[in-house]
Amino acid sequence: MKEHKIHSGWKSKLHEIIYEADTPAGKMFDILLFILIIMSVVLVMLESVKDVDHDYHGILLALEWVITIFFTFEYIARVISIKKPWKYIFSFYGIIDFVSTIPLYLSYIMAGSQVLLAVRAFRLLRIFRILKLVKFMGEASQLRSALRASRTKIAVFIYVVMILSVILGTLMYIIESDEAGFTSIPRSIYWTIVTLTTVGYGDIAPQTALGQFFATIIMVLGYGIIAVPTGIVTVEFSKQNTIKNQAPHMNLNTQSCVNCLAEGHRDDAAHCYNCGEPL
Amino acid sequence: MKEHKIHSGWKSKLHEIIYEADTPAGKMFDILLFILIIMSVVLVMLESVKDVDHDYHGILLALEWVITIFFTFEYIARVISIKKPWKYIFSFYGIIDFVSTIPLYLSYIMAGSQVLLAVRAFRLLRIFRILKLVKFMGEASQLRSALRASRTKIAVFIYVVMILSVILGTLMYIIESDEAGFTSIPRSIYWTIVTLTTVGYGDIAPQTALGQFFATIIMVLGYGIIAVPTGIVTVEFSKQNTIKNQAPHMNLNTQSCVNCLAEGHRDDAAHCYNCGEPL
Amino acid sequence: MKEHKIHSGWKSKLHEIIYEADTPAGKMFDILLFILIIMSVVLVMLESVKDVDHDYHGILLALEWVITIFFTFEYIARVISIKKPWKYIFSFYGIIDFVSTIPLYLSYIMAGSQVLLAVRAFRLLRIFRILKLVKFMGEASQLRSALRASRTKIAVFIYVVMILSVILGTLMYIIESDEAGFTSIPRSIYWTIVTLTTVGYGDIAPQTALGQFFATIIMVLGYGIIAVPTGIVTVEFSKQNTIKNQAPHMNLNTQSCVNCLAEGHRDDAAHCYNCGEPL
Amino acid sequence: MKEHKIHSGWKSKLHEIIYEADTPAGKMFDILLFILIIMSVVLVMLESVKDVDHDYHGILLALEWVITIFFTFEYIARVISIKKPWKYIFSFYGIIDFVSTIPLYLSYIMAGSQVLLAVRAFRLLRIFRILKLVKFMGEASQLRSALRASRTKIAVFIYVVMILSVILGTLMYIIESDEAGFTSIPRSIYWTIVTLTTVGYGDIAPQTALGQFFATIIMVLGYGIIAVPTGIVTVEFSKQNTIKNQAPHMNLNTQSCVNCLAEGHRDDAAHCYNCGEPL
Repeated sequence: MKEHKIHSGWKSKLHEIIYEADTPAGKMFDILLFILIIMSVVLVMLESVKDVDHDYHGILLALEWVITIFFTFEYIARVISIKKPWKYIFSFYGIIDFVSTIPLYLSYIMAGSQVLLAVRAFRLLRIFRILKLVKFMGEASQLRSALRASRTKIAVFIYVVMILSVILGTLMYIIESDEAGFTSIPRSIYWTIVTLTTVGYGDIAPQTALGQFFATIIMVLGYGIIAVPTGIVTVEFSKQNTIKNQAPHMNLNTQSCVNCLAEGHRDDAAHCYNCGEPL
Repeated sequence: MKEHKIHSGWKSKLHEIIYEADTPAGKMFDILLFILIIMSVVLVMLESVKDVDHDYHGILLALEWVITIFFTFEYIARVISIKKPWKYIFSFYGIIDFVSTIPLYLSYIMAGSQVLLAVRAFRLLRIFRILKLVKFMGEASQLRSALRASRTKIAVFIYVVMILSVILGTLMYIIESDEAGFTSIPRSIYWTIVTLTTVGYGDIAPQTALGQFFATIIMVLGYGIIAVPTGIVTVEFSKQNTIKNQAPHMNLNTQSCVNCLAEGHRDDAAHCYNCGEPL
Repeated sequence: MKEHKIHSGWKSKLHEIIYEADTPAGKMFDILLFILIIMSVVLVMLESVKDVDHDYHGILLALEWVITIFFTFEYIARVISIKKPWKYIFSFYGIIDFVSTIPLYLSYIMAGSQVLLAVRAFRLLRIFRILKLVKFMGEASQLRSALRASRTKIAVFIYVVMILSVILGTLMYIIESDEAGFTSIPRSIYWTIVTLTTVGYGDIAPQTALGQFFATIIMVLGYGIIAVPTGIVTVEFSKQNTIKNQAPHMNLNTQSCVNCLAEGHRDDAAHCYNCGEPL
Repeated sequence: MKEHKIHSGWKSKLHEIIYEADTPAGKMFDILLFILIIMSVVLVMLESVKDVDHDYHGILLALEWVITIFFTFEYIARVISIKKPWKYIFSFYGIIDFVSTIPLYLSYIMAGSQVLLAVRAFRLLRIFRILKLVKFMGEASQLRSALRASRTKIAVFIYVVMILSVILGTLMYIIESDEAGFTSIPRSIYWTIVTLTTVGYGDIAPQTALGQFFATIIMVLGYGIIAVPTGIVTVEFSKQNTIKNQAPHMNLNTQSCVNCLAEGHRDDAAHCYNCGEPL
C-alpha cells in the first residue's frame, strides 16, 4: 500500500489510462491509439504510391506529423507513468514504440530512415491487448509454444535444406547455360530455393532437357520436403493439445439445479456453481 | 395434428414438392431444379465468352429468361408454402435464391447488376439435399465443425501473417527498385503474399542480389508457415474424429420441417426436434 | 486336385511362366516383360521429339513393331492360359494390356489412336508384382485404403472448392480487365484455380489494385484450404496405422490363383482364399 | 589400456585434436576448420559470378590454394591418426572430405572437375559435431529415422506419381499445340510435374480451353496428392515421438572412438559401445 502512495496521483491515473483497459478513459485511449496505429501504417503505404504522394503530399506530411506527435507524447507518458521505466524501454513493445516514433525526426538528420517505418506494423500486434482478446492471446500463446517446442527440429531442417540448396544450385549452374538465367551459382541457388519451396516465379527456368529432368527431381524433392515441417508442427500441436486436456479435470454431472436449471456440476458439489442454491 | 390442418391442402402439397424429396413429384422437382441451376451457372459463363455471346446472344438471352421465370415462380412458391415465410426469406438459402433470381430484372433498371450473378453458384450447394446425400452432409458438417473449432487459431494466424507481410513488403520496397515491379509498398505487399503463399506468379520478381537473398528467406519462411494451418486443422480433425466415434449413432434423413425448416430428423421421428411440429 | 488336372499340361506351364514369378522361367519372363514395357513407354516419348523422330524414324517404328508383336503374343497367352478368360479380359490389367497392344494396329485403320499410347504407362504398375515387392504392395494397399476411407470427405471438399472457384472467378472477371488476361469467366475460373492451388503460372495476373487485393485474399484462402485434405488424409493414415498394428500379421506372397487371379495368399495356403482353387 | 599404448604419442595427440572437441586445441581446430569450410563454399560461389571473378581472379585462386592445402593436410592427418584408416576413408565423411580436396588438383589434369565442387557443401554438415550440438544431433537422427521409416511408403507414392505424370503429360501433349510450349512428350511431362507439385513456372502454359480445363484437374489432383506424403510423415513423426517418450534416456556426448569412429557414447562410458575400445 505504501509503495502505491509513492506513485503520485496523476501518474497513477495516467498509468491506468495507458496501460489498463478497464476504465472508460483507458478503453477510449486504447481505441484511439489503435486507430492511429492503423493510420500510421496506411500513411506509410500511401506515401509510397507515386500518384497519391504527388497529389496529396501536403496532407500526408501533416498527418504524419500528427501521428508522430501523438506517438511521441504516448511514448513519454508510458515512460514516466511506470515505476521501472527501463523495463518498458527495453521490452519488445518498448523498442517497437520508440522505433515507430522516430522516423520523421530522423528524416531531417539523415537519409534512409525509411527502413524504420517497416517496424510500425509490429504495433498492430497490440490489437490482442486492446480488444481484451484474452482468449485470442491464449490461442496465440499456444501457437507460440508449439512453434517454440519444434524450433530445434525446424532449425536442423532448414540448415539441411540450405546445404541441399547449395549443392543442387551448384549442379544446376553446371548443367544449365547463362541464357536460361543461371548466370552464377548464387542465382542458381536462388532458383533452387524458388523451386524447392514450390514458389516457381519462372523468371529463371531450365531450357535444356537435362536441366528440366534435374529440375523435375528437385520439384518432387521439394514436394516431399514440405511434409517435414508440417509433420513436426502437427505432432507438436497435438502434444500441446494433450497437455491442455490433461490440465486438472473433474467429472461433471448432468444434475440440474432446482433453482436455475444449470447443469454440469462437479460430482462433489454441494451448491449450484451458478446461483449458490444447495444441491 | 390440429396445427397441421391450418395448413391448407394445396399449400401442404406444394411444400412437399418443393421442400421434400420423398415423393416422386418432390424428387422430380429437385432434379429439374438442379439441372436449371447448373444451366444458369453455365449460361453466365457462356455469356462472358465474347465469341459465343456474339453468335448466340438471342438464344442465351431467351434461356436466361426461362431460368429467371422458373426461379421467380420457385421463389414465390417457397415463400407461400411455408408457415413462417420470414424464416426462409432471411435464411442463407433464402437470400441466395432471391439474389440468384433478380439480376435479369435489375439489368433493366441499373447497370453493374452482373456482380449478383456470381452468387448463383452458391445454389449448387443444394446438391447435398437433392441427392439425399445425408452421408455427405454428415461429412460436410464434420468438416465444418472442425474448421469452426480451429477458427480462432486460424484468425490469429492470418492476422500475424498479415502483419508480417506488411513488414516484409515494406522492406522489399526499400531494397528493390521500380524496374523489378516494386513500384509501391502495396504492390510490394502483394508480391510478399504471392511469395509467402508459394503462388509465385513471376509478374514481379526481385532483380538485385540483396532482393533475391531476402526473397529466399521469405520463401523458406512461407514454406514453414504453411505447416501451421495444416497442423491446426489436422489436430482438430483428429479430435472431431474421436468425438464422432464415441457418440451413439442414429440415421438422420433430409426431410425438412414445415414450420422451421430444420433438417436431419431421426428416421423414426414423429415431431420436429427443433420446434415440435408433427412431421 | 481333380480340377487341377482339367488344365492341360502346356497351358498350366504357360500359366506358371506368365502369371507366377516363382520358377526361373517365370522370373525371366517377368523381367523381360518389364524391360519391354519401359521400352514401349520410352519409345512413345522419343517419337514425340521431332528431331529424334526425324533422324531415327525407321528404327523407332521397327522397335514399335517388335514391342507390339510381343505384347500381342503375351496378351493371347494370358487369355488362353487362364481358366476363366473373361475374368482377365475385363480386369483392370486386362483392359490396360489390351489397350497398350492395339495403337499400332489401329493407326492403320484410323487417325488419333495416339491417345491410347498414354495408357501404356499404367503397365509400369506391374513392377510391384514383378519385383515380388509384397511389402510394397502392402504399403500401396495401406495408402489405397486410407485414400478410399477419406474419399467422401475429399469429394465434398473438392465440390465446395469448385463452387468457390466459380464464385471467385466470376468476381475477378468483373473486377479485372481483358488486358490482364481475364477475357471470360471460364478463363477467370482457370486463373482462380491456378491461384487457389498455389500453382501460379503468371500467364494471367491481376493488374489493378483492387484485383491484386482480391487475389491476395484468394491466395491466403488457398493457403488455408490446402490444410483440409492434408488434415483428412493424416487422420485417416493415423487410423489405418492403428488398425494395422492391432491386426495379427501373416506373410503374404505374390502367387496368383489359376482360377480367379487373386493375389496375396498366405505362405502356408493350400487353397485360394477367394475361390477355393487348390494352389 | 594396453591397446591404447600401441597408438604412438603424437598420433594419439593428433587424433585428439582432429577428432575430439574436448581439449582447447581440438576446439580451436574445429572452429578453424568450419571457417575454412564456409570460405571454401563461398569461394566456389564467388568464382561463378563473372564480375567478381574478373576483378579478383588472382585473390580467389590464391585463397582456393590455401584452402586446398589445408584440406589436404587435414585429410592426411585424419588418415594417419586413426587406427583403421580404411574405415574413415570409405565412410560418408571420408569420401566427402576427399572429394572436397581434389578439384583444384584435378583442374590441371582434366576439364569438368567443377562438378566435384558441389560436394563441398556437404562438409557443412560438420557443424553438428563442431558445435557439440548433441541435442541437434538427436533431433536430426529423429528426423532421419522418421523419414527412413516412411521410405517405402514414399517410394511407392513417388513411383505412382511418376506413372501418373507420364500418362497426364502424354494426354496434354495430344491436347495442346506446339505454340503453347508442349513440343514433345518429355516436355509435357516436365510441365505436368511443374503443375502437379504446384511450382508453376509459367514458361509452358496451356492456351486452349480444353488444355486449361485439363490443367485445372491436374492442379486439383496435385493439391490433393500433396496431402499424402504429409500424412505419411506426420504419422511417422507421431510414432517416433511416442517411442522416444517411452524409451529411457541417457545423455550422450560427441566423443568419437579412436578405433571405429563411433559417436554418441554415454557420458559415463569407459569403453566404446561399438568395438569395445577404451575411451
